[in-house]
Order: sequence, then C-alpha cells, then structure tokens
Amino acid sequence: MPPLKIAIIGFGKIAADQHVPAIAANPRLELAATVSRQGKGVEGVPSFTTHSELLAADLGLDAAAITTPPSVRYQIARDCIEAGLHLMLEKPPTMTLSEIEDLACLAKGRQLTLQTTWHSQHAPAVAAAAEALAGKHIASMRVTWHEDVRKWHPGQEWIFEAGGFGVFDPGINAFSILTRIFPGALFVRNAELSFPENRQAPIAAEITFSSPVAGDDLHGSLDFRRSGSETWTIEIRTTEGMQMILSEGGSRLELDGRLHPGGGPGEYPDLYREFVDLVDCRSSKVDVRPLRLVADAFLLGRRKMVDPFLF
Amino acid sequence: MPPLKIAIIGFGKIAADQHVPAIAANPRLELAATVSRQGKGVEGVPSFTTHSELLAADLGLDAAAITTPPSVRYQIARDCIEAGLHLMLEKPPTMTLSEIEDLACLAKGRQLTLQTTWHSQHAPAVAAAAEALAGKHIASMRVTWHEDVRKWHPGQEWIFEAGGFGVFDPGINAFSILTRIFPGALFVRNAELSFPENRQAPIAAEITFSSPVAGDDLHGSLDFRRSGSETWTIEIRTTEGMQMILSEGGSRLELDGRLHPGGGPGEYPDLYREFVDLVDCRSSKVDVRPLRLVADAFLLGRRKMVDPFLF
Repeated sequence: MPPLKIAIIGFGKIAADQHVPAIAANPRLELAATVSRQGKGVEGVPSFTTHSELLAADLGLDAAAITTPPSVRYQIARDCIEAGLHLMLEKPPTMTLSEIEDLACLAKGRQLTLQTTWHSQHAPAVAAAAEALAGKHIASMRVTWHEDVRKWHPGQEWIFEAGGFGVFDPGINAFSILTRIFPGALFVRNAELSFPENRQAPIAAEITFSSPVAGDDLHGSLDFRRSGSETWTIEIRTTEGMQMILSEGGSRLELDGRLHPGGGPGEYPDLYREFVDLVDCRSSKVDVRPLRLVADAFLLGRRKMVDPFLF
Repeated sequence: MPPLKIAIIGFGKIAADQHVPAIAANPRLELAATVSRQGKGVEGVPSFTTHSELLAADLGLDAAAITTPPSVRYQIARDCIEAGLHLMLEKPPTMTLSEIEDLACLAKGRQLTLQTTWHSQHAPAVAAAAEALAGKHIASMRVTWHEDVRKWHPGQEWIFEAGGFGVFDPGINAFSILTRIFPGALFVRNAELSFPENRQAPIAAEITFSSPVAGDDLHGSLDFRRSGSETWTIEIRTTEGMQMILSEGGSRLELDGRLHPGGGPGEYPDLYREFVDLVDCRSSKVDVRPLRLVADAFLLGRRKMVDPFLF
C-alpha cells in the first residue's frame, strides 16, 4: 500500500516536536507539505503560508493534521473536507461544541475520516488504568492538575483571553483521561472558577463531579498558580478498596501501592497509528466529551474574582 | 389503541397551564398521575410527592413528562428510563450537555422514546419561517430578545444563580427557533455577557454568530432589563433581498412586509402530537443544539460586570 500523503497545517511547536517525528516514524505516512503563516516547515518538504494555497496546489494529498490555534480550525477543516482530505485535529478540536458537531456531519457526508485527538488519552499508563477500573464502583476521586503557567505557557497571553480556556487548557487533558478511564458516565455537578481581575479566563477551578457509578466524593482541582514542579495526578478509590494513583499526566500508574508497568509507543505515535487504522476503514473518531465537560463547567460554574495576573 | 398512560413529574405552573390541557385534549393520552413535592396535582388523578413513590406504585404507566427544575432532572429521568417509561423533557432537558447525552444513550439502549422539547419551535409561525428560508443565503440577522425579568420571572432568585442561565433562560427559546429556521449551521463567534455584581448569571448578552451559509452580520441581543412590554423578534435578510420578521416569540411572521398566516395546534398540543408519533415508532428526538449554543456562549464569552440587581 502506498503511504498516505499528509500535510501539517499550522506548523508551530507541537507540530515540530510531536507530529513531524510521529509521521516520520510511521511507514504508512508521508509528510507531503506544511502550512505556516511564518513560513516555517521541514527542509525538503513543500511549505505554504495558507491552507488555501496548499489545497490549490496539485499534491495528491490524502490527509491533513490541523495544529493551528482552535479559533481558526473550523474554516480550515471545512475547506479540507470539501477538498476530500481525511483529518486529524489537535486538541481541543474546535473553539465551540457546535463547530465540531458540524465537522462530524460534513465528514460523514463525504465518507471521510475525522479524528479528534486527546494526546493524554494515549499516555503510557492510561489504558492500564481504564482496564483496572472497568466494572468497578467508585468511592472517591481526587484530580489534581497544578502547574506553573509561567513555566508551561510563558507569555501566552491568549490563554487568558475569552475562549482561551485558562487553566482548562491543561485541565482538558485531565478531563480527557477521566472520560477514558472512568467506568461510567461523569458529570460536572458544580464548579468554582477563579478569574484574575484583569483576565477573561480562569486561573484556577475547583470542580465537583457526579456519576451514576460513584458516590458523592468526586473532586477536581485545577490551578495555574503552582510555582516549581507540577502535579498531574488522578487518585481513585473503588468501593472494594482498590487504590489507584495515575500520575505524571497519565504516564505512571500505581495500583494498591504497586507500580504498574506502562506501555505503548508514546502519545503521538499511537495517535497516528489510530489515524491510519481509521482511514483504512473510512471510519471516524469524534470524541467531544472532554470539551463538553469544560463547557459544562463554564455553563454552571460560580465565578470568583482573584488577584490580577501578569506574566 | 388504548391511550398512553402518562405521569407529569414536577407539577408546577408550566405543568398546570400547558401540559395538563394538552394531554386532556389528546385522545391518545391519559393523565395517570402527577408528582409534586408540595402535593399539588389534578383532582381525581393520583398524586405522589416523589418520583420514587410514583415508580413503586403499580399504575401500568407508559410514559412521563418531566417538568421539574433542570437541576434534578437527570436522576429522575434515569430512574424513569430504568423503569421502562418513555420520556418527554421540558426545556432545557438537563443542567449540562453531558447529562442529556447520557440519557440519550440510556433510552436508546432500552428502546425507549426520549423527546427533548423546545416549545418555541412549535409556535404558530416557526414552520413557515423555516420554509421561507430553506436553501437561502443569509445577508444579515438581528435577534432581539428583551423582556422585563421582574414581570416574567418575579422573585425567581434561582434564575440568577450559577447554572440558572440568567437571560439565557428566555434566550434559549430564541436559540431554539434559530436552530429550527436557520438554513445551515450556526455558531457563536463571540459573546459579551453582562453579570450584575451581586449575581452569578448574566442579565444581558450581546452575541455575534457565524455560519457557512451567511455573511458576517449576524447578531443577537438578550436583555432582562427592559421595562414595560417585551420584544421577542428575529429579523433576517437574505442575499436575494427577502426580508423576514418573525416576532412575538415565533407567533407572527412578516415576509417582505406581508403578514403570513400562522397555523398549527399550538405549542404544547403540537409537542404532545409529536411525542405520541415518536412513541408509536419507538424513535427519539434529542435536539441539544439550543443548549449547546448557550454553552458555547458561556465557554467563549467575555464577562463584564454591571450594576447589582435586586428584584
């Protein structure tokens, strides 16, 4: 089978660090072009400054990975679907839930593959955590997603703008793991969102969840104000007394105090493995649940003003 | 065919004013019970104070209409589905998008009918407005949904609490009409939400929409601070120059200055007609689009503090 010719649209840090090596390592894929407004790209690979120029060029493309900021993704994705390309979308897939639902419709209508990606779901220990929890009833859950915004998002003013998600930008990674491992439906029951006085997106959030397969003790804490090291941990206790600690953003799993060996090819190589499988059978994977939980938190969250934040 | 035996769960004003007469007028339906914490109900019809008591009684129920406040609906609906009842849900169907998606799953698994209801979609002139716009390209849209909160929601403190939706409580009626009549996808592009300093839900909202079948001039204005009479109007101009004014909450339609005769049996009788049709073929109608647009507005909206509000 000839490799799928794929373009990367939105050639920034995540594309260079993750997508390019993952594509290069997969013999079923060939990086055929890149798009970057700043003219960045990969030596020896055709590059364009807009997706319209890419689509107008006669490259025989099969697919595209869209890694632009979310605010411009819908229009680019729509144009790509109309040009007959299979699509991988970086997280979050679009700015709004309505946009991703529409893209899912369009792709289905054209029988094209659409893949939403939540890279944390492919972290080495996540599959084992899901297996360990399958069929269990949950007694308690603590999600702690604390990091230093100055360290992980230095100078990224957009993250605190309206629609920038604030602390939910990393928090959605936690939600994506939760929706993968939690053994039943999970809902936001209430949320307290802390907005810096000078910002339009929350710097911290305390969330209470509910679930038909769990008791009342389900909590999440997201915070950008940590200095020094970060904590990306999900602790779950089942009613049978099993203790699960999934830490390091899904990379490390402890079950009842014993370290569980992780596995898998790595987050992005696994996403591209899945993408090729989806294209091979013209099916799609459109998982909106992590974004929907974020939207639910904004919909019913209490807002609290906190100290102004400056980078 | 014997009539479907239906219970009303959450017997408040909307149940008494709308659901009871609509059920009474439909020969395919029989009101078999009501549930009200305050013990309200209909003379001669069995009444219960909790849905659990209702489900434990051996009434041979076929269906239930859930008209409680949204915050308690998910658990009641889940219990009803597990008891094998077809369900009608008042608007909005649940507090969060995640809950309604889960109910849709559960109902599908049990082959039971689930109907979300958006009564404004059944207002007399809405179907004609949808027909007039079908296939058109939209040049501009103005949605004006202004009403006096003291007149329409006197003393309803919950409407300004977190999750109470504020001005989106009536605004979602406008969104439900939009999703019914707009001839293509519709997205929230940005929103400015005005929160009274002493409240957790917006008292007004200015929204800009976008759509693949329209230009850039799509706006909505929701406001609870109107005193006196109300305006519930959607004005749309097509690129061909057709002028549509849908006013009085979907009851009155003017096309190019000419009044268009309305029709239909009325909002709630039409909802129950649809419900019986759905149950007859065991299909469901789960329309989350109006709630999704509200969630999108909260997700990417700018927040602005305005004067405190007291009833």
